[in-house]
Amino acid sequence: MGNGRDSGYSQSRKQNNTDQRGKKVMTPKTQEMLDRLKIFFDEEEHLNNAAHIVQFDMETLCPPAAMEAAGDTASYLTNKIFLIHRNPEFLEAASWLYDHRDELDEFDRTMAEQLHREDARICRVTPEQDREFSKTYNKAYADWLKAKQKSDFAAFAPSLKAVREVELTRVDLMTEKSPVVYDNLLDLYERGMTSAKLDEIFDKCRTRLVPLLRKIMSSEKVIRRDFVTRTVDEIAQEKMARYLLETIGFDFERGAFSTTEHPFTDSMGPDDERVTTHFFPNLFLSSMYSTIHEGGHALFDQNQPREDWTHHIYEGKTMGQHESVSRFYENVIGRSEAFIHLIYPKVKELFPDAMFDVTERELYEAVNIVKPSLIRTEADEFTYIFHIMIRYEIEKMIVAGEVEIDDLPKIWNDKYEEYLGVRPSDDASGVLQDVHWTSGFGYFPTYALGNMYNSMYAARMRKEIDVDEAVANGNFALINDWMAENVWKKADRLAPADWIRDITGRELSPDDFLDYLEKKYSALYGL
Amino acid sequence: MGNGRDSGYSQSRKQNNTDQRGKKVMTPKTQEMLDRLKIFFDEEEHLNNAAHIVQFDMETLCPPAAMEAAGDTASYLTNKIFLIHRNPEFLEAASWLYDHRDELDEFDRTMAEQLHREDARICRVTPEQDREFSKTYNKAYADWLKAKQKSDFAAFAPSLKAVREVELTRVDLMTEKSPVVYDNLLDLYERGMTSAKLDEIFDKCRTRLVPLLRKIMSSEKVIRRDFVTRTVDEIAQEKMARYLLETIGFDFERGAFSTTEHPFTDSMGPDDERVTTHFFPNLFLSSMYSTIHEGGHALFDQNQPREDWTHHIYEGKTMGQHESVSRFYENVIGRSEAFIHLIYPKVKELFPDAMFDVTERELYEAVNIVKPSLIRTEADEFTYIFHIMIRYEIEKMIVAGEVEIDDLPKIWNDKYEEYLGVRPSDDASGVLQDVHWTSGFGYFPTYALGNMYNSMYAARMRKEIDVDEAVANGNFALINDWMAENVWKKADRLAPADWIRDITGRELSPDDFLDYLEKKYSALYGL
Repeated sequence: MGNGRDSGYSQSRKQNNTDQRGKKVMTPKTQEMLDRLKIFFDEEEHLNNAAHIVQFDMETLCPPAAMEAAGDTASYLTNKIFLIHRNPEFLEAASWLYDHRDELDEFDRTMAEQLHREDARICRVTPEQDREFSKTYNKAYADWLKAKQKSDFAAFAPSLKAVREVELTRVDLMTEKSPVVYDNLLDLYERGMTSAKLDEIFDKCRTRLVPLLRKIMSSEKVIRRDFVTRTVDEIAQEKMARYLLETIGFDFERGAFSTTEHPFTDSMGPDDERVTTHFFPNLFLSSMYSTIHEGGHALFDQNQPREDWTHHIYEGKTMGQHESVSRFYENVIGRSEAFIHLIYPKVKELFPDAMFDVTERELYEAVNIVKPSLIRTEADEFTYIFHIMIRYEIEKMIVAGEVEIDDLPKIWNDKYEEYLGVRPSDDASGVLQDVHWTSGFGYFPTYALGNMYNSMYAARMRKEIDVDEAVANGNFALINDWMAENVWKKADRLAPADWIRDITGRELSPDDFLDYLEKKYSALYGL
Repeated sequence: MGNGRDSGYSQSRKQNNTDQRGKKVMTPKTQEMLDRLKIFFDEEEHLNNAAHIVQFDMETLCPPAAMEAAGDTASYLTNKIFLIHRNPEFLEAASWLYDHRDELDEFDRTMAEQLHREDARICRVTPEQDREFSKTYNKAYADWLKAKQKSDFAAFAPSLKAVREVELTRVDLMTEKSPVVYDNLLDLYERGMTSAKLDEIFDKCRTRLVPLLRKIMSSEKVIRRDFVTRTVDEIAQEKMARYLLETIGFDFERGAFSTTEHPFTDSMGPDDERVTTHFFPNLFLSSMYSTIHEGGHALFDQNQPREDWTHHIYEGKTMGQHESVSRFYENVIGRSEAFIHLIYPKVKELFPDAMFDVTERELYEAVNIVKPSLIRTEADEFTYIFHIMIRYEIEKMIVAGEVEIDDLPKIWNDKYEEYLGVRPSDDASGVLQDVHWTSGFGYFPTYALGNMYNSMYAARMRKEIDVDEAVANGNFALINDWMAENVWKKADRLAPADWIRDITGRELSPDDFLDYLEKKYSALYGL
């Protein structure tokens, strides 16, 4: 721990009143304010725990007729947290601590800074507005679920319009903001990121990946995929999911596993990490990789420093940082030859009817096949980024008011045709496929950024440990320890740009990711 | 609805200021107090919903390491409800409404009376005490779970002693109470019931059932039971559970179904009824009847008048009333020849390997076999009441301080040997088998009272509709409509003694139940 690396504080450390390590000595008033916050946080912890459990329940077991009431209850609880953060005594303490942050240790300083940023975001939001926002998001979720079941975008459109209004209102109420409306939403998920930077990243990707995709599509290479649609019953798939989670090091004592429509992972609390998945009887690989992806998220949460919880900074990490980890386990590790070597015997054992005539090499090739498709969550590692670029372009337009919500199905379908050469025949497999817009815009780009980050730290990891050997032997302790020390430890404390620089010594760029794809897929397709 | 039947209020209705139906006209102040309470109840509804979901989660999915934190969160939420009920403004309104209850309609009057009784029970309990009580109960649950897994009563004993202390403290703090300590706990679950009355009821049962059990045990009748321990996989059992719930009329739009260690049913809210069960691979009949039992509870909740929720009186029904319904569906209906006739084809279809050589008659006999055993939840309909008498006698002694907690395993085992001729070989199948004592004493007798009530109303039902024909044809709408009109409608408003008199015109007695057992089992065993 010791002193942080945030250069902004170095000056104050040179002043008087510092202890032997250069930190200013804490005054009794600062201690008092810190103690006061801890009391509020104790209460928040319970409300947060309950809200997460209610929301988890809504996505897994809650009966249809009770969804709205459960959503209201979740809103009530999150509104209570909001009220704590708007309490004058809380705000006084937060403000004092921010002003005296040079007296704090690195964890408490991070907490004070987080609260300061939050205040700039919400100080003009009334409790009634905040509650209304939550209700809108929760109703959107319920409507989306129904609309998707009926494959009818029109049934979701009014809710999506309402979400858009809420998003614009939220930006409008921020006290410190970018003139680019969308960037303010992006910043909620990926602190410091801008659409200008993203445009640059995606341009680079487009330049190198479009020609590469053409080459792959015209390659002579034949990859076997007849077996991937063979039927595998749910019991066997569940055993596989548990095996995969155990293999990568998920701690079942401190976590649980369940099923849902749209898989996700969430922390109910420091010792309660929930992973969900969805079993498709005729797409067993899909369930497997979804589980590894969610398991990656879970490893991140289960291995973050416990101080991050006790100092209440556990939400400091961004979605891009989180996705970098989930996609590291899913793709960089999970779709490697070493991992296939490790799990191949178990896949044959649990899915004998689907795997009886499949070789290890055929399994490796099948999990890496490049095939433009409609559904993001089913996309291969290579074409995945195109799904993100489509969503990014559309949500930028939605926020900028450059499209009518009602036109989205057509716009969506046109873009799929343009980028990937496929066109959805219905809304369920088109614009309604993802849950994300029920809670706002700006999330999708973080999936792509995750790839950039993990390619960068994977490059360093490979210089320090023999990753393939560890994976092939199932020695995930070695991998996870490296991740804990280098990737997870400071994620709650450093902004993504500082964090990736801290890990790799370099600035964020898509180059490592593009190199990785080029090398892997050139080999696979014999280009 | 109109005027209630509570004779206590007839006098006030003869006064002036009454409307054309004899009810006093509501003053503006009374209206104001009523409106004030509704605002508090809105908040309580969310807290209650969340607390139930958190507790449901603890019993179904919550990981081991998070149980204590989840328990703390549940305590926090229930304590918040407690604080609402202790809020001076709430109490002022409640007190006003009770004093002016002759101005209220029957629902609001019930609400005012419930609050008055509650006040007498808790007005001397401080918020800190209440929170401590909840924590004790929640910790006892977690400890019991671990102790049962290890079959080690000593690991649970400290928690049970703590529960006993809490129970005694709670009674001590009541402002209106019986000198018989145990009766005050009993009253929490079965309003108006006393141990004197219970002693009388159980004496009658003992007098008639002990000789009958001897006759049954010495009967020549052979009942086939080789097939009941045949293996049935969980998937098939789950299908059966869903079929049974659908058959008896459980509404899946407004309810959910899950698995747990100790099956229970609970309402998260008016449209969210949860039924749980536990599948034993080699005891498929056990899972089936547990599901019907819990389904009976669920039908009661799902069909109570919605006014009971809106007027906040939904907890007016007692445990005995609730158990009467669950045991009506489980036993009176579920173990009848008509019901077996209805489900037999489905049982054969779903469990072909277990049922291939079993006739309808053999299935009927197997679900009604009389066989003294160790586990209450596995007990047959006939010997079940002995399990209750044992627990009743022990918990009376615990509360009266006539036993040492540490001696319970021996006392328990001795009583089983005395009453049923069987002796547990370990704590898990002995004194640790039930969850109930983790939340106090006085619950068990309600199971037995349920049998008395349902035998009485079943006798009237049989006079009015052809129950066997309806059941054999799967016409549960007829049964459930009768139950809704006669049994469920006023359960939240009338005390059990008034309620059973309202349904049957008679006072509570075990006679119908004893007649029913004697008739059914004499026929089955050819006595």
